[in-house]
Amino acid sequence: MIGIYDQNGLDVQEIVFFGLYALQHRGQESAGIAVTDGNSISYHKGMGLVADVFDDRSMSELEGGKAAIGHVRYTTSSDGMYANAQPLVTKYKKGTMALAHDGRLVNADSLRRELEETGTIFQTSLDIEVIANLIARNIDMGLEEAIKHTMGMIRGAYALLIMTEEKLVAMRDPLGIRPLALGKLEDSFVVASETCSFDTIGAEYIRDVKPGEILVIDAKGLKSIQTPVPLESALCIFEFVYYARTDSTIDGISVYMARKEAGARLAAEQPVEADMVIGVPDSGTTAAIGYAEAAGIPFGEGFIKNRYVGRTFIRSSQHMREQGVRIKLNALRRMVKGKRIVVIDDSIVRGTTSKKIVEMLRLAGAREVHMRISSPPVRFPCYYGLDIDTSDQLIGYSHDVDDICKIIGADSLGYLSQEGLMKTLEGSGCGFCRGCFDGTYPIEAAGDSLEKGDKEKKNRKD
Amino acid sequence: MIGIYDQNGLDVQEIVFFGLYALQHRGQESAGIAVTDGNSISYHKGMGLVADVFDDRSMSELEGGKAAIGHVRYTTSSDGMYANAQPLVTKYKKGTMALAHDGRLVNADSLRRELEETGTIFQTSLDIEVIANLIARNIDMGLEEAIKHTMGMIRGAYALLIMTEEKLVAMRDPLGIRPLALGKLEDSFVVASETCSFDTIGAEYIRDVKPGEILVIDAKGLKSIQTPVPLESALCIFEFVYYARTDSTIDGISVYMARKEAGARLAAEQPVEADMVIGVPDSGTTAAIGYAEAAGIPFGEGFIKNRYVGRTFIRSSQHMREQGVRIKLNALRRMVKGKRIVVIDDSIVRGTTSKKIVEMLRLAGAREVHMRISSPPVRFPCYYGLDIDTSDQLIGYSHDVDDICKIIGADSLGYLSQEGLMKTLEGSGCGFCRGCFDGTYPIEAAGDSLEKGDKEKKNRKD
Amino acid sequence: MIGIYDQNGLDVQEIVFFGLYALQHRGQESAGIAVTDGNSISYHKGMGLVADVFDDRSMSELEGGKAAIGHVRYTTSSDGMYANAQPLVTKYKKGTMALAHDGRLVNADSLRRELEETGTIFQTSLDIEVIANLIARNIDMGLEEAIKHTMGMIRGAYALLIMTEEKLVAMRDPLGIRPLALGKLEDSFVVASETCSFDTIGAEYIRDVKPGEILVIDAKGLKSIQTPVPLESALCIFEFVYYARTDSTIDGISVYMARKEAGARLAAEQPVEADMVIGVPDSGTTAAIGYAEAAGIPFGEGFIKNRYVGRTFIRSSQHMREQGVRIKLNALRRMVKGKRIVVIDDSIVRGTTSKKIVEMLRLAGAREVHMRISSPPVRFPCYYGLDIDTSDQLIGYSHDVDDICKIIGADSLGYLSQEGLMKTLEGSGCGFCRGCFDGTYPIEAAGDSLEKGDKEKKNRKD
Amino acid sequence: MIGIYDQNGLDVQEIVFFGLYALQHRGQESAGIAVTDGNSISYHKGMGLVADVFDDRSMSELEGGKAAIGHVRYTTSSDGMYANAQPLVTKYKKGTMALAHDGRLVNADSLRRELEETGTIFQTSLDIEVIANLIARNIDMGLEEAIKHTMGMIRGAYALLIMTEEKLVAMRDPLGIRPLALGKLEDSFVVASETCSFDTIGAEYIRDVKPGEILVIDAKGLKSIQTPVPLESALCIFEFVYYARTDSTIDGISVYMARKEAGARLAAEQPVEADMVIGVPDSGTTAAIGYAEAAGIPFGEGFIKNRYVGRTFIRSSQHMREQGVRIKLNALRRMVKGKRIVVIDDSIVRGTTSKKIVEMLRLAGAREVHMRISSPPVRFPCYYGLDIDTSDQLIGYSHDVDDICKIIGADSLGYLSQEGLMKTLEGSGCGFCRGCFDGTYPIEAAGDSLEKGDKEKKNRKD
Repeated sequence: MIGIYDQNGLDVQEIVFFGLYALQHRGQESAGIAVTDGNSISYHKGMGLVADVFDDRSMSELEGGKAAIGHVRYTTSSDGMYANAQPLVTKYKKGTMALAHDGRLVNADSLRRELEETGTIFQTSLDIEVIANLIARNIDMGLEEAIKHTMGMIRGAYALLIMTEEKLVAMRDPLGIRPLALGKLEDSFVVASETCSFDTIGAEYIRDVKPGEILVIDAKGLKSIQTPVPLESALCIFEFVYYARTDSTIDGISVYMARKEAGARLAAEQPVEADMVIGVPDSGTTAAIGYAEAAGIPFGEGFIKNRYVGRTFIRSSQHMREQGVRIKLNALRRMVKGKRIVVIDDSIVRGTTSKKIVEMLRLAGAREVHMRISSPPVRFPCYYGLDIDTSDQLIGYSHDVDDICKIIGADSLGYLSQEGLMKTLEGSGCGFCRGCFDGTYPIEAAGDSLEKGDKEKKNRKD
Repeated sequence: MIGIYDQNGLDVQEIVFFGLYALQHRGQESAGIAVTDGNSISYHKGMGLVADVFDDRSMSELEGGKAAIGHVRYTTSSDGMYANAQPLVTKYKKGTMALAHDGRLVNADSLRRELEETGTIFQTSLDIEVIANLIARNIDMGLEEAIKHTMGMIRGAYALLIMTEEKLVAMRDPLGIRPLALGKLEDSFVVASETCSFDTIGAEYIRDVKPGEILVIDAKGLKSIQTPVPLESALCIFEFVYYARTDSTIDGISVYMARKEAGARLAAEQPVEADMVIGVPDSGTTAAIGYAEAAGIPFGEGFIKNRYVGRTFIRSSQHMREQGVRIKLNALRRMVKGKRIVVIDDSIVRGTTSKKIVEMLRLAGAREVHMRISSPPVRFPCYYGLDIDTSDQLIGYSHDVDDICKIIGADSLGYLSQEGLMKTLEGSGCGFCRGCFDGTYPIEAAGDSLEKGDKEKKNRKD
Repeated sequence: MIGIYDQNGLDVQEIVFFGLYALQHRGQESAGIAVTDGNSISYHKGMGLVADVFDDRSMSELEGGKAAIGHVRYTTSSDGMYANAQPLVTKYKKGTMALAHDGRLVNADSLRRELEETGTIFQTSLDIEVIANLIARNIDMGLEEAIKHTMGMIRGAYALLIMTEEKLVAMRDPLGIRPLALGKLEDSFVVASETCSFDTIGAEYIRDVKPGEILVIDAKGLKSIQTPVPLESALCIFEFVYYARTDSTIDGISVYMARKEAGARLAAEQPVEADMVIGVPDSGTTAAIGYAEAAGIPFGEGFIKNRYVGRTFIRSSQHMREQGVRIKLNALRRMVKGKRIVVIDDSIVRGTTSKKIVEMLRLAGAREVHMRISSPPVRFPCYYGLDIDTSDQLIGYSHDVDDICKIIGADSLGYLSQEGLMKTLEGSGCGFCRGCFDGTYPIEAAGDSLEKGDKEKKNRKD
Repeated sequence: MIGIYDQNGLDVQEIVFFGLYALQHRGQESAGIAVTDGNSISYHKGMGLVADVFDDRSMSELEGGKAAIGHVRYTTSSDGMYANAQPLVTKYKKGTMALAHDGRLVNADSLRRELEETGTIFQTSLDIEVIANLIARNIDMGLEEAIKHTMGMIRGAYALLIMTEEKLVAMRDPLGIRPLALGKLEDSFVVASETCSFDTIGAEYIRDVKPGEILVIDAKGLKSIQTPVPLESALCIFEFVYYARTDSTIDGISVYMARKEAGARLAAEQPVEADMVIGVPDSGTTAAIGYAEAAGIPFGEGFIKNRYVGRTFIRSSQHMREQGVRIKLNALRRMVKGKRIVVIDDSIVRGTTSKKIVEMLRLAGAREVHMRISSPPVRFPCYYGLDIDTSDQLIGYSHDVDDICKIIGADSLGYLSQEGLMKTLEGSGCGFCRGCFDGTYPIEAAGDSLEKGDKEKKNRKD
């Protein structure tokens, strides 16, 4: 998610295109860009990667100049259809708005039901459509007041971009669960989910948007409105574990440094005698370097990744499916053979990938395979987040570490402790949501916890 | 527009596909089909022709069995985008509705504004989105009552199909401006804009839906609700002149017979000594056969049409543009050379096509070219209809017959009189809207004429 | 097939594009254009219709200016693949040639075998690849002599276009089986399969290329070389029956006039008392007009054709397949009901279409259905031509007229006699190949008839 | 390039598909697969990546069972068109052959000219079309003899796969310039350019095909024919430097081990005091690990690569082009800032990438940037190879190391010596072509060097 408000005659849609490109890891299902020329808003959206959705023709249909926002959407459940591509562009009493949302509301269903009671219709299954309706309902207060009012009603995780013909508004939920950063390109303000997109477009990082902060950017410049926030913020800790790109910096912490430090702490907590430390590409590499350095064991490449793996349209036969991960990854026999290997991954969710990783190393002749995970066991579902929905899919929910070790077939298995992980994030000055590790979710209000509880119970029964 | 409610285990999406195929002449911009399996609604829409939008893959995504509706959309102004493809599928308090609309409301803008005042947002520029909101607002009355209530609020031309998970509802505006027919395929009811689609899918024509009638089709069978209607109905007369396919029957009148009869009456009203009567393919052919028969002049083919003309993506150069219509049509020199030709077309809108037709015949060696039009001059815009929007684009608004004859370069020009045209439709038992010929629009209520008047004035000033 | 050699700074690739467009009826499988700028040849080919294969991007890749040739390929058997799209572009000793062929050689297989004996490899199954090899083998004689020499070796039906960097060569087989016409656009010569393409691009018809004539067009102008020809030429009579577009003129005979006259003679030879004469669209219409006029029975439209029928990607279910032709054609109940109908078609090949036509008319309420065919029974395969390959697929080979009448379910069936058909072509000054009617094929040389005979015997055994 | 001859009822086209997938790094311009079912050969080819060219539909068109070959083509100059996609499938006297070629002939032009002299035509600009003609010319000797004879005529680099309806033949040029390995999948023999494809499809590596060896695989099993070879072989040394995938083993040497060792030797030859060693992803990573280990300087990640970078269809504006490499790579500010960095890349060709790499590190705050290259300067063009065509494009041809260091803006620049590189390949038992480093090309015969010399002179004048 990225937005820009132009003060310099920049080509805003091109900047947003390349910014989205750098954020592709945050969502591969659909991509979209909306642009305003000051008077009207045009947009283009489509299914697939940014580079699939946009070509010279579709870019030329965007008539811009003033501001633009772009969004990439994560694959979730069965909602993968065009109607759910963002930004959502709607007409309302005062004109047109384009809206983009990163995160998930916990009370979207009840708000949706309340709105439906009063006759509202919905054309998507997006939380942002609920938000657009709430803003439109209160627009007589003025846009800023309507947004503030809406923030009082919605609960959950959200970084939001709202663009009207004349303004770009960015905001972050009161707990600061999803990241959102402010940058500057020449004299124009840019807002994006991660700082790596600033580097790509040549923008300078200024600061993170604060939890509960609303930024209004228009011809008059930048204006900050701070809404009430809880005592402690709750940035999603999984951004550091997996979601964010390694070269981003979130709320003052370098993702790279945090991952490397996690590797080092993992070495201290879960030492093992071994000949080589390797990472599962790409997400385990940084922690593996940290582990190797701290443990004094040589770091090596144990896997080679096929750089061209993308969506292939060939359904593989049984014979080929058994080959499994080798289409994407190949173990480096020469490096691995006869060695005691420590292999580092960022997390274990279902356990199937870890099992294949261990198998491949054994087939390549590894003498011992010690799996080390640079975060604690994922044991609880995420209500604010993206793709871990029910506990029963989580191998860490139903099994202890010894069981998991047996299931994946490793000689030993060790996780970084929660305390260890927290230490890698020290000095950030922000709090973290660690619900997926310990089941303790940040609480905004009584009603919230209730709704969440209901969901969880339902999940556990399934 | 076509819908079916299944009682026989039919493949409803396939039937709707082939039915739409037969209705392709009613709209080429976009196509869509929505299907219900009794519990949930799935849909697929896209830009272009029915055969472009649907393939085996997209058809297989439609999970149906119970009922289906399909829509083709006419190209209008600048709204040619995916968001405006129909059916519109929306969630509302009671579940999901899919809606399809043929026609145009005259008070859509004011209703839209009223809804926006209360916080409603709009994601398309379709009248049907206004209608969906009005129904959802009143859904506590029950679906049928909400629809009746909505019909009390909307004014203009509409044939509507509304499908919920369990029902198919069809209705026609109180003036019966747009056609809608009821048929039966085995024991299942089908509703479609034109009877030609019944022939294609092998359904039997039962009767036309009456002006102001609501048909509710569900597991209990067919139920008819008659809402209040004005004294006289006002079927769009242009359906007989141009819109409908020749093999359809509307409100009891065969389009073919009406067109042939119009040709015969034109021969009587506008006789001319000539050697051959030809029609402009395809819309002038039937009237030309009628004219020839009545005048006792041989009917002949004067033009050959390229059967493969479709959308070509090559922008032609100036040199080629001057060739103009010859890519689609070619005059038959051997037939035309040295002859006095009567050429029949259904109507003259802008005059540019007629001019080229006359030129081509002269270049092919015609001694005399007498243009005869099987309807009266189009002099006024259409507020209920499709593509004649402002008077100033109409050559018949600003010029009399003699002027037009000079502009298009014919030796003589004759139109069928309004009386003549009306006689071809005798015995139908329904009234007709002839606003485009005489500026007299059917009046539903005081407010209506006012809004219409405003528009017209605005148009005239332009 | 069309070619142009420019003298006027024309946009040759655009002209060839629009010319091909007008010739689309001669082949829908693939399309291609090759262009020379005087120094090198570029080309683009693809599967499908002209409008599918070419867009602004592919057109812009053609770097031309001097000359261009284009080709559309008929669907034949199992060779529908990209490699078989034409023009064939090959390097040879002197540079590059692009070649296009309309027709079929009868000794292609033996020539191919002889070439293979000497080590030649083939990348397509096209006759033109054989021809290209023969020319290249003899190129030391010079291009013209090599072409003459090649014409001495190949037998069968061919109209050929050969373009080098600097020349455009056109030729027609000694029997003149396939048509080829010469025209002029401003000062530039154009050669095309049919004159209808001249009308489309605004070129003037000059004359037909003569049987056995070679035209060499280059910077020096037009040069004609006449090679030896048999006493009588043998233009394919099916061009007038079916292949050619109605508005073309071939070897001095208007296709339209011939078809209309065939209808008139059919009325004389095969009279019947009836209320209306109708044609099967589009190929039977012209003869139907001729029949009606001559018989004094009113001409009417009995079928309406769906203008938008194209390739649909939906495989229809059993239920829909039984609907059969109605997706393309619909009988006009109002016109047909209770009437005695004469229905005119151009020919009967397999009989399946005729059977459906009769059924549709009966279902629409026709009292009597009299099928009349404006050509004699097709009883023998075609060795020079396009798609009638083996006798056993021909209903006219194995059944007499009474049998066929019963099979298709008509009240009566009458064909035009061969004498009658020949009279419609009187005054052309050229001979005709009537092999498909009477099995008498034009003979060029002894060896030829032998090879042909072998094929036929093989077919009969199958 | 990969081929398989089946003995086990394997799905040969699927195996070749996944094998090609693993070889995608060897060519991204076009991809193709040809398959034989024992009686006839079918094929599918297209422009783009393997995953773009093949989908379920195109795979289902391949009718196989017996054997299959697949090819990916490298982007070269202006020949990027469909006609140049491989395998080349041709008919010849004995049936059909499919041929695939990795490498480049040095006497292709003169052979082509000789063949043209005798009337041969060419439809592609591929060397393999020359080879197919030579084989077909001599096929009366039998396939094996014809291939041997052909090998006596062609000079240059080639690994070849030739498939007839019944056989799979694989061969490698007498110098062994391009790699080719033999493997086994169950009981079926597989031949592929690199062993990494064996791992992907689950095949076992047996041995490398020897220089000058012909392998004939058919129902009778595997037969090896050894043709005469020079005293010393000349495997392309750039396979180890850049071309091959790190997890492949060529002629007994692990590419991974060679690259890591190159890094270690580079550390010894070109030491520098620094704080961190980083690699340019992905090709510099392995050598960087080797350098770091040997130098005792910590290895770190200095760049993050956008995993989703592929072909984008957006042409970037001037402003964006200046951003350059940052769309693909981003320097890790936190890691780099204030540090003395050694950055390792595999080679410098034009110098433009190295310049950007240094700039990015400086912008990210690196105190010193020391570029180290794990191979000697590329100073001469390659006549056997792929993409380094003329000396004047090579920064190493016209500039010495100091100059290059200034141009790219590094604090120091060091290359691995040729001796150093050779030591990393010790124990292979094969010779190497190092022409690109020292201009000494392996000589097969007198004529060869002559032709080569001509080319070089021509290049130098350009």
